[in-house]
Amino acid sequence: MSAEIEDLLKRYQNYPNVVGIIILDPFAIPIKTTMEYTLTVHYAALISTLTSKAAKMVTNLDASNELMNIRLRTKVHEVIVLPSENYIIIVVQNPGS
Amino acid sequence: MSAEIEDLLKRYQNYPNVVGIIILDPFAIPIKTTMEYTLTVHYAALISTLTSKAAKMVTNLDASNELMNIRLRTKVHEVIVLPSENYIIIVVQNPGS
Repeated sequence: MSAEIEDLLKRYQNYPNVVGIIILDPFAIPIKTTMEYTLTVHYAALISTLTSKAAKMVTNLDASNELMNIRLRTKVHEVIVLPSENYIIIVVQNPGS
Repeated sequence: MSAEIEDLLKRYQNYPNVVGIIILDPFAIPIKTTMEYTLTVHYAALISTLTSKAAKMVTNLDASNELMNIRLRTKVHEVIVLPSENYIIIVVQNPGS
């Protein structure tokens, strides 16, 4: 499992303009991060809540549908959330020029 | 104001693969929609809640930051949420081929 996490990390580090990657377990516990600890914990708490709400919203609108990913564009960053069965991957990017 | 809404509607209808557009006022009341009524009301309630949570989350992480838009990719659709001072615009697209 730890090799799998390293692979995930490597894959997303190749995304352009990546400033940080956080990998959460399904209980929203950070199991890997390239960001500062307090920011990681902050992201983990907020993103996991938002993701579970978004996932519920999607199935609420259509029971056969499923959330694949969320992109939050902010003035400063783009935050990409990739939920899966075993992990929630959070990729923080600087917006492309 | 109604001309402004018509302009918004026209602009987003030119997006590729658009299947529906909903324009909400800041109180999450649908003021324009191209979708069926019950689905519009359903989207309005869920998206406005999610958007306000996401906006709070962004400023919570960094008080000088601001949410620009949200993209929710689902198995069936991509939902783009564009919050602004006067409206929340929801654009539902079929994913590009």
